[in-house]
Amino acid sequence: MQLTSETLERAVEHLSKLPGVGRKSAQRLAMHLVKQDKDQVLQLAQALIDLKQKIRYCSSCFTITDDDPCPICRSAKRQRNVLCVVEESRDVYVIEKTNEFRGSYHVLGGVISPLDDVGPDDIRIKELIARVNSNSEPVSEVILALNPDAEGEATSFYIHKMLSPFGVKVTRIAHGIPMGTELEFIDEATLSKAFIGRNIF
Amino acid sequence: MQLTSETLERAVEHLSKLPGVGRKSAQRLAMHLVKQDKDQVLQLAQALIDLKQKIRYCSSCFTITDDDPCPICRSAKRQRNVLCVVEESRDVYVIEKTNEFRGSYHVLGGVISPLDDVGPDDIRIKELIARVNSNSEPVSEVILALNPDAEGEATSFYIHKMLSPFGVKVTRIAHGIPMGTELEFIDEATLSKAFIGRNIF
Repeated sequence: MQLTSETLERAVEHLSKLPGVGRKSAQRLAMHLVKQDKDQVLQLAQALIDLKQKIRYCSSCFTITDDDPCPICRSAKRQRNVLCVVEESRDVYVIEKTNEFRGSYHVLGGVISPLDDVGPDDIRIKELIARVNSNSEPVSEVILALNPDAEGEATSFYIHKMLSPFGVKVTRIAHGIPMGTELEFIDEATLSKAFIGRNIF
Repeated sequence: MQLTSETLERAVEHLSKLPGVGRKSAQRLAMHLVKQDKDQVLQLAQALIDLKQKIRYCSSCFTITDDDPCPICRSAKRQRNVLCVVEESRDVYVIEKTNEFRGSYHVLGGVISPLDDVGPDDIRIKELIARVNSNSEPVSEVILALNPDAEGEATSFYIHKMLSPFGVKVTRIAHGIPMGTELEFIDEATLSKAFIGRNIF
Protein backbone atom coordinates (compact mmCIF):
# COMPACT_ATOMS: atom_id res chain seq x y z
CA MET A 1 0.00 0.00 0.00
CA GLN A 2 1.34 3.34 -1.03
CA LEU A 3 -0.83 5.56 1.18
CA THR A 4 -1.16 5.09 4.93
CA SER A 5 -4.96 5.02 4.78
CA GLU A 6 -7.18 2.72 2.70
CA THR A 7 -9.98 5.26 3.00
CA LEU A 8 -7.75 7.88 1.40
CA GLU A 9 -6.65 5.38 -1.24
CA ARG A 10 -10.30 4.60 -2.08
CA ALA A 11 -11.21 8.29 -2.37
CA VAL A 12 -8.18 8.85 -4.62
CA GLU A 13 -9.22 5.93 -6.82
CA HIS A 14 -12.75 7.26 -7.23
CA LEU A 15 -11.64 10.85 -7.79
CA SER A 16 -9.08 9.83 -10.41
CA LYS A 17 -11.88 8.30 -12.50
CA LEU A 18 -13.24 11.82 -13.09
CA PRO A 19 -12.39 13.35 -16.48
CA GLY A 20 -9.19 15.37 -16.40
CA VAL A 21 -8.27 14.26 -12.88
CA GLY A 22 -5.06 12.22 -12.70
CA ARG A 23 -3.86 10.30 -9.66
CA LYS A 24 -1.79 13.22 -8.44
CA SER A 25 -4.65 15.75 -8.55
CA ALA A 26 -6.97 13.14 -7.04
CA GLN A 27 -4.57 12.80 -4.09
CA ARG A 28 -4.41 16.57 -3.73
CA LEU A 29 -8.22 16.85 -3.78
CA ALA A 30 -8.65 14.02 -1.25
CA MET A 31 -6.09 15.49 1.15
CA HIS A 32 -7.73 18.88 0.79
CA LEU A 33 -11.09 17.33 1.76
CA VAL A 34 -9.56 15.57 4.80
CA LYS A 35 -8.65 19.02 6.08
CA GLN A 36 -12.05 20.62 5.35
CA ASP A 37 -14.97 20.98 7.75
CA LYS A 38 -17.04 17.82 7.96
CA ASP A 39 -20.15 19.79 6.95
CA GLN A 40 -18.57 21.00 3.74
CA VAL A 41 -17.53 17.50 2.70
CA LEU A 42 -20.97 16.08 3.54
CA GLN A 43 -22.62 18.85 1.50
CA LEU A 44 -20.37 18.11 -1.47
CA ALA A 45 -21.14 14.38 -1.21
CA GLN A 46 -24.87 15.06 -0.97
CA ALA A 47 -24.74 17.40 -3.97
CA LEU A 48 -23.13 14.59 -5.99
CA ILE A 49 -25.73 12.04 -4.81
CA ASP A 50 -28.49 14.50 -5.79
CA LEU A 51 -27.07 14.61 -9.31
CA LYS A 52 -28.28 11.02 -9.74
CA GLN A 53 -31.34 11.19 -7.50
CA LYS A 54 -32.95 14.52 -8.38
CA ILE A 55 -31.92 15.24 -11.93
CA ARG A 56 -34.03 14.01 -14.83
CA TYR A 57 -34.30 14.85 -18.51
CA CYS A 58 -37.01 17.21 -19.74
CA SER A 59 -39.60 15.06 -21.56
CA SER A 60 -39.95 17.74 -24.22
CA CYS A 61 -36.42 18.97 -25.03
CA PHE A 62 -34.33 16.39 -23.09
CA THR A 63 -32.13 18.91 -21.34
CA ILE A 64 -31.07 18.25 -17.73
CA THR A 65 -33.68 19.50 -15.26
CA ASP A 66 -35.01 19.08 -11.72
CA ASP A 67 -38.64 19.52 -12.78
CA ASP A 68 -40.26 18.23 -15.93
CA PRO A 69 -40.79 20.16 -18.20
CA CYS A 70 -37.59 22.18 -17.81
CA PRO A 71 -37.61 25.94 -17.04
CA ILE A 72 -37.05 26.79 -20.72
CA CYS A 73 -39.90 24.62 -22.00
CA ARG A 74 -42.13 25.97 -19.18
CA SER A 75 -41.35 29.60 -19.92
CA ALA A 76 -44.10 31.63 -21.59
CA LYS A 77 -41.44 33.88 -23.09
CA ARG A 78 -39.89 31.23 -25.31
CA GLN A 79 -41.01 30.47 -28.86
CA ARG A 80 -42.22 26.90 -29.31
CA ASN A 81 -41.99 26.99 -33.10
CA VAL A 82 -38.20 27.36 -33.35
CA LEU A 83 -36.10 24.40 -32.18
CA CYS A 84 -32.34 24.58 -31.71
CA VAL A 85 -30.76 21.10 -31.94
CA VAL A 86 -27.67 20.59 -29.75
CA GLU A 87 -25.55 17.63 -28.72
CA GLU A 88 -25.64 18.00 -24.92
CA SER A 89 -27.22 20.10 -22.15
CA ARG A 90 -23.92 21.94 -21.74
CA ASP A 91 -24.48 23.42 -25.20
CA VAL A 92 -27.85 24.74 -24.02
CA TYR A 93 -26.05 26.63 -21.23
CA VAL A 94 -23.47 28.05 -23.62
CA ILE A 95 -26.18 29.30 -25.99
CA GLU A 96 -28.35 30.63 -23.14
CA LYS A 97 -25.42 32.79 -22.02
CA THR A 98 -25.53 34.71 -25.31
CA ASN A 99 -29.17 35.80 -24.66
CA GLU A 100 -29.51 35.64 -28.43
CA PHE A 101 -31.86 32.71 -28.84
CA ARG A 102 -35.48 32.88 -27.67
CA GLY A 103 -36.75 29.59 -29.09
CA SER A 104 -36.72 26.09 -27.59
CA TYR A 105 -34.08 23.35 -27.61
CA HIS A 106 -33.76 19.74 -28.57
CA VAL A 107 -30.88 17.90 -26.86
CA LEU A 108 -29.78 14.85 -28.89
CA GLY A 109 -27.68 13.36 -26.08
CA GLY A 110 -24.83 12.60 -28.49
CA VAL A 111 -23.98 12.58 -32.19
CA ILE A 112 -23.85 9.79 -34.77
CA SER A 113 -20.43 8.19 -34.47
CA PRO A 114 -19.95 4.74 -36.04
CA LEU A 115 -16.48 4.44 -34.46
CA ASP A 116 -18.05 4.75 -31.00
CA ASP A 117 -20.94 2.50 -32.00
CA VAL A 118 -23.47 5.35 -31.81
CA GLY A 119 -26.09 5.16 -34.54
CA PRO A 120 -29.09 7.38 -35.33
CA ASP A 121 -31.32 5.31 -33.05
CA ASP A 122 -29.02 5.84 -30.05
CA ILE A 123 -29.61 9.58 -29.95
CA ARG A 124 -32.91 11.49 -29.83
CA ILE A 125 -33.56 11.91 -33.55
CA LYS A 126 -36.87 9.99 -33.50
CA GLU A 127 -38.03 12.35 -30.75
CA LEU A 128 -37.01 15.38 -32.86
CA ILE A 129 -38.97 14.07 -35.82
CA ALA A 130 -41.96 13.46 -33.54
CA ARG A 131 -41.79 17.06 -32.34
CA VAL A 132 -41.60 18.40 -35.89
CA ASN A 133 -44.42 16.07 -36.94
CA SER A 134 -46.66 16.93 -33.99
CA ASN A 135 -49.86 18.84 -34.70
CA SER A 136 -50.17 20.45 -31.28
CA GLU A 137 -47.10 22.69 -31.51
CA PRO A 138 -46.13 23.37 -35.14
CA VAL A 139 -42.40 23.87 -35.73
CA SER A 140 -41.43 26.43 -38.38
CA GLU A 141 -37.62 26.24 -38.09
CA VAL A 142 -35.03 23.74 -36.86
CA ILE A 143 -31.63 25.32 -36.20
CA LEU A 144 -28.75 22.82 -36.16
CA ALA A 145 -26.06 23.85 -33.65
CA LEU A 146 -23.83 20.77 -33.56
CA ASN A 147 -20.06 20.91 -33.31
CA PRO A 148 -18.25 21.44 -36.64
CA ASP A 149 -16.40 18.09 -36.51
CA ALA A 150 -16.93 14.95 -38.62
CA GLU A 151 -19.57 13.49 -36.27
CA GLY A 152 -21.43 16.79 -35.90
CA GLU A 153 -21.48 17.30 -39.69
CA ALA A 154 -22.67 13.75 -40.35
CA THR A 155 -25.42 14.10 -37.74
CA SER A 156 -26.49 17.47 -39.20
CA PHE A 157 -26.73 15.96 -42.69
CA TYR A 158 -28.69 12.99 -41.39
CA ILE A 159 -31.18 15.16 -39.52
CA HIS A 160 -31.56 17.44 -42.53
CA LYS A 161 -32.39 14.42 -44.70
CA MET A 162 -34.85 12.97 -42.17
CA LEU A 163 -36.67 16.30 -41.77
CA SER A 164 -36.98 17.14 -45.49
CA PRO A 165 -40.34 15.27 -45.94
CA PHE A 166 -41.92 17.59 -43.37
CA GLY A 167 -41.19 20.81 -45.24
CA VAL A 168 -39.77 22.47 -42.14
CA LYS A 169 -37.04 25.11 -42.61
CA VAL A 170 -33.69 23.64 -41.47
CA THR A 171 -30.83 26.07 -40.82
CA ARG A 172 -27.32 25.81 -39.34
CA ILE A 173 -25.50 28.27 -37.14
CA ALA A 174 -22.78 30.15 -39.03
CA HIS A 175 -19.19 28.97 -39.07
CA GLY A 176 -16.54 31.57 -39.67
CA ILE A 177 -13.87 33.73 -38.08
CA PRO A 178 -14.24 33.94 -34.28
CA MET A 179 -14.54 37.50 -32.97
CA GLY A 180 -11.27 39.03 -31.79
CA THR A 181 -9.08 36.69 -33.81
CA GLU A 182 -6.63 37.76 -36.49
CA LEU A 183 -7.01 36.27 -39.96
CA GLU A 184 -3.44 35.05 -40.11
CA PHE A 185 -4.08 32.62 -37.26
CA ILE A 186 -7.18 31.06 -38.83
CA ASP A 187 -7.04 27.61 -40.43
CA GLU A 188 -7.99 27.24 -44.10
CA ALA A 189 -11.19 25.26 -43.43
CA THR A 190 -12.60 28.02 -41.23
CA LEU A 191 -11.51 30.76 -43.62
CA SER A 192 -13.10 28.89 -46.49
CA LYS A 193 -16.38 28.54 -44.51
CA ALA A 194 -16.20 32.25 -43.73
CA PHE A 195 -16.00 33.10 -47.46
CA ILE A 196 -18.80 30.72 -48.41
CA GLY A 197 -20.99 32.11 -45.65
CA ARG A 198 -20.25 35.80 -46.36
CA ASN A 199 -23.07 38.29 -45.78
CA ILE A 200 -24.02 41.56 -47.48
CA PHE A 201 -22.55 44.44 -45.50
CA MET B 1 -30.54 30.97 -13.18
CA GLN B 2 -27.95 29.99 -15.73
CA LEU B 3 -28.35 26.20 -15.63
CA THR B 4 -31.67 24.46 -16.12
CA SER B 5 -31.30 22.48 -12.87
CA GLU B 6 -30.72 23.80 -9.37
CA THR B 7 -29.33 20.42 -8.38
CA LEU B 8 -26.70 20.72 -11.09
CA GLU B 9 -26.02 24.31 -10.06
CA ARG B 10 -25.48 23.22 -6.44
CA ALA B 11 -23.10 20.43 -7.45
CA VAL B 12 -21.16 22.87 -9.63
CA GLU B 13 -20.89 25.32 -6.74
CA HIS B 14 -19.55 22.68 -4.36
CA LEU B 15 -17.15 21.20 -6.91
CA SER B 16 -15.76 24.61 -7.84
CA LYS B 17 -14.68 25.10 -4.21
CA LEU B 18 -12.11 22.33 -4.71
CA PRO B 19 -8.52 23.49 -5.26
CA GLY B 20 -7.69 23.91 -8.94
CA VAL B 21 -11.29 23.40 -10.07
CA GLY B 22 -12.83 26.43 -11.78
CA ARG B 23 -16.51 26.84 -12.59
CA LYS B 24 -16.04 25.48 -16.09
CA SER B 25 -14.31 22.26 -14.96
CA ALA B 26 -16.84 21.92 -12.14
CA GLN B 27 -19.63 22.01 -14.71
CA ARG B 28 -17.84 19.43 -16.83
CA LEU B 29 -17.36 17.15 -13.80
CA ALA B 30 -20.99 17.50 -12.69
CA MET B 31 -22.35 16.76 -16.17
CA HIS B 32 -20.03 13.78 -16.41
CA LEU B 33 -21.44 12.44 -13.14
CA VAL B 34 -25.04 12.93 -14.31
CA LYS B 35 -24.24 10.49 -17.12
CA GLN B 36 -22.48 7.93 -14.90
CA ASP B 37 -24.05 4.85 -13.30
CA LYS B 38 -25.84 5.68 -10.09
CA ASP B 39 -23.66 3.16 -8.21
CA GLN B 40 -20.46 4.85 -9.30
CA VAL B 41 -21.64 8.26 -8.14
CA LEU B 42 -22.86 6.87 -4.82
CA GLN B 43 -19.51 5.14 -4.29
CA LEU B 44 -17.64 8.37 -5.01
CA ALA B 45 -19.88 10.28 -2.59
CA GLN B 46 -19.42 7.61 0.09
CA ALA B 47 -15.64 7.64 -0.41
CA LEU B 48 -15.67 11.41 0.21
CA ILE B 49 -17.86 11.05 3.32
CA ASP B 50 -15.47 8.36 4.62
CA LEU B 51 -12.61 10.85 4.30
CA LYS B 52 -14.16 12.72 7.22
CA GLN B 53 -15.70 9.79 9.08
CA LYS B 54 -13.02 7.12 8.95
CA ILE B 55 -9.73 8.99 8.67
CA ARG B 56 -7.85 10.04 11.78
CA TYR B 57 -4.30 11.13 12.53
CA CYS B 58 -1.77 8.63 13.89
CA SER B 59 -1.27 9.48 17.58
CA SER B 60 2.45 8.83 17.22
CA CYS B 61 3.54 10.39 13.89
CA PHE B 62 0.33 12.34 12.99
CA THR B 63 0.11 11.04 9.46
CA ILE B 64 -3.32 10.32 7.98
CA THR B 65 -4.49 6.81 8.83
CA ASP B 66 -7.57 4.59 9.21
CA ASP B 67 -6.18 2.77 12.27
CA ASP B 68 -4.16 4.26 15.06
CA PRO B 69 -1.16 3.79 15.10
CA CYS B 70 -0.61 4.07 11.35
CA PRO B 71 0.83 1.18 9.27
CA ILE B 72 4.31 2.74 9.33
CA CYS B 73 4.40 3.19 13.11
CA ARG B 74 2.95 -0.35 13.52
CA SER B 75 5.51 -1.97 11.23
CA ALA B 76 8.21 -4.04 12.91
CA LYS B 77 10.52 -3.31 9.96
CA ARG B 78 10.78 0.41 10.62
CA GLN B 79 13.40 2.02 12.85
CA ARG B 80 11.91 3.92 15.77
CA ASN B 81 15.09 5.85 16.54
CA VAL B 82 15.21 7.88 13.31
CA LEU B 83 12.46 10.47 12.79
CA CYS B 84 11.89 12.25 9.48
CA VAL B 85 10.06 15.56 10.01
CA VAL B 86 7.72 16.57 7.16
CA GLU B 87 5.08 19.23 6.64
CA GLU B 88 2.13 17.08 5.53
CA SER B 89 1.09 13.45 5.04
CA ARG B 90 1.54 13.90 1.28
CA ASP B 91 5.27 14.29 1.90
CA VAL B 92 5.26 10.90 3.69
CA TYR B 93 3.84 9.32 0.52
CA VAL B 94 6.42 11.00 -1.68
CA ILE B 95 9.28 9.81 0.53
CA GLU B 96 7.80 6.30 0.89
CA LYS B 97 7.85 5.95 -2.90
CA THR B 98 11.64 6.23 -2.91
CA ASN B 99 11.96 3.14 -0.66
CA GLU B 100 15.04 4.90 0.68
CA PHE B 101 13.96 5.72 4.21
CA ARG B 102 13.36 2.96 6.78
CA GLY B 103 12.80 5.14 9.87
CA SER B 104 9.61 6.74 11.22
CA TYR B 105 7.94 10.04 10.44
CA HIS B 106 6.73 13.11 12.26
CA VAL B 107 4.09 15.13 10.39
CA LEU B 108 4.00 18.75 11.57
CA GLY B 109 0.69 19.57 9.86
CA GLY B 110 2.07 22.86 8.56
CA VAL B 111 5.06 25.18 8.81
CA ILE B 112 5.68 28.34 10.79
CA SER B 113 4.29 31.22 8.73
CA PRO B 114 3.66 34.54 10.50
CA LEU B 115 1.93 35.92 7.39
CA ASP B 116 -0.68 33.14 7.61
CA ASP B 117 -0.87 33.49 11.39
CA VAL B 118 0.73 30.09 11.97
CA GLY B 119 3.10 30.07 14.94
CA PRO B 120 5.22 27.27 16.47
CA ASP B 121 2.31 26.27 18.76
CA ASP B 122 -0.05 25.76 15.82
CA ILE B 123 1.97 22.88 14.37
CA ARG B 124 3.16 19.69 16.09
CA ILE B 125 6.54 20.85 17.38
CA LYS B 126 5.67 20.22 21.05
CA GLU B 127 4.77 16.68 20.08
CA LEU B 128 8.10 16.27 18.27
CA ILE B 129 10.01 17.47 21.34
CA ALA B 130 7.98 15.06 23.50
CA ARG B 131 8.95 12.17 21.20
CA VAL B 132 12.64 13.12 21.32
CA ASN B 133 12.43 13.57 25.09
CA SER B 134 10.62 10.28 25.70
CA ASN B 135 12.49 7.55 27.55
CA SER B 136 10.55 4.64 26.07
CA GLU B 137 11.78 5.00 22.49
CA PRO B 138 15.11 6.88 22.32
CA VAL B 139 15.60 8.96 19.17
CA SER B 140 19.11 9.11 17.75
CA GLU B 141 18.49 11.25 14.66
CA VAL B 142 15.92 13.79 13.47
CA ILE B 143 15.97 14.35 9.70
CA LEU B 144 14.36 17.61 8.60
CA ALA B 145 12.64 17.22 5.21
CA LEU B 146 10.71 20.49 4.93
CA ASN B 147 10.29 22.40 1.68
CA PRO B 148 13.22 24.71 0.80
CA ASP B 149 11.14 27.91 0.95
CA ALA B 150 11.21 30.73 3.52
CA GLU B 151 8.65 29.06 5.83
CA GLY B 152 10.29 25.65 5.59
CA GLU B 153 13.72 27.12 6.35
CA ALA B 154 12.40 29.12 9.31
CA THR B 155 10.64 26.07 10.71
CA SER B 156 13.78 23.94 10.26
CA PHE B 157 15.87 26.51 12.15
CA TYR B 158 13.29 26.73 14.93
CA ILE B 159 13.10 22.95 15.37
CA HIS B 160 16.91 22.69 15.31
CA LYS B 161 17.11 25.30 18.09
CA MET B 162 14.40 23.63 20.18
CA LEU B 163 16.02 20.19 19.89
CA SER B 164 19.58 21.28 20.70
CA PRO B 165 19.18 20.84 24.51
CA PHE B 166 18.44 17.14 23.97
CA GLY B 167 21.72 16.34 22.24
CA VAL B 168 19.94 14.52 19.40
CA LYS B 169 21.60 14.54 15.96
CA VAL B 170 19.59 16.86 13.66
CA THR B 171 20.17 16.55 9.89
CA ARG B 172 18.54 17.97 6.77
CA ILE B 173 17.92 16.29 3.42
CA ALA B 174 20.35 17.49 0.75
CA HIS B 175 19.48 20.34 -1.59
CA GLY B 176 21.20 20.39 -4.95
CA ILE B 177 20.87 19.67 -8.65
CA PRO B 178 17.82 17.48 -9.44
CA MET B 179 18.69 14.30 -11.35
CA GLY B 180 18.29 14.57 -15.12
CA THR B 181 18.53 18.36 -15.19
CA GLU B 182 21.17 20.31 -17.05
CA LEU B 183 23.31 22.74 -15.07
CA GLU B 184 22.49 25.67 -17.34
CA PHE B 185 18.81 25.55 -16.28
CA ILE B 186 19.52 25.57 -12.54
CA ASP B 187 18.98 28.74 -10.49
CA GLU B 188 21.90 30.22 -8.56
CA ALA B 189 20.50 29.41 -5.11
CA THR B 190 20.26 25.70 -5.94
CA LEU B 191 23.68 25.64 -7.60
CA SER B 192 25.19 27.38 -4.60
CA LYS B 193 23.56 24.79 -2.25
CA ALA B 194 24.94 22.04 -4.48
CA PHE B 195 28.49 23.39 -4.10
CA ILE B 196 28.22 23.84 -0.35
CA GLY B 197 26.81 20.33 0.02
CA ARG B 198 29.35 18.63 -2.26
CA ASN B 199 30.46 15.10 -1.38
CA ILE B 200 33.71 13.18 -1.85
CA PHE B 201 33.51 11.14 -5.06
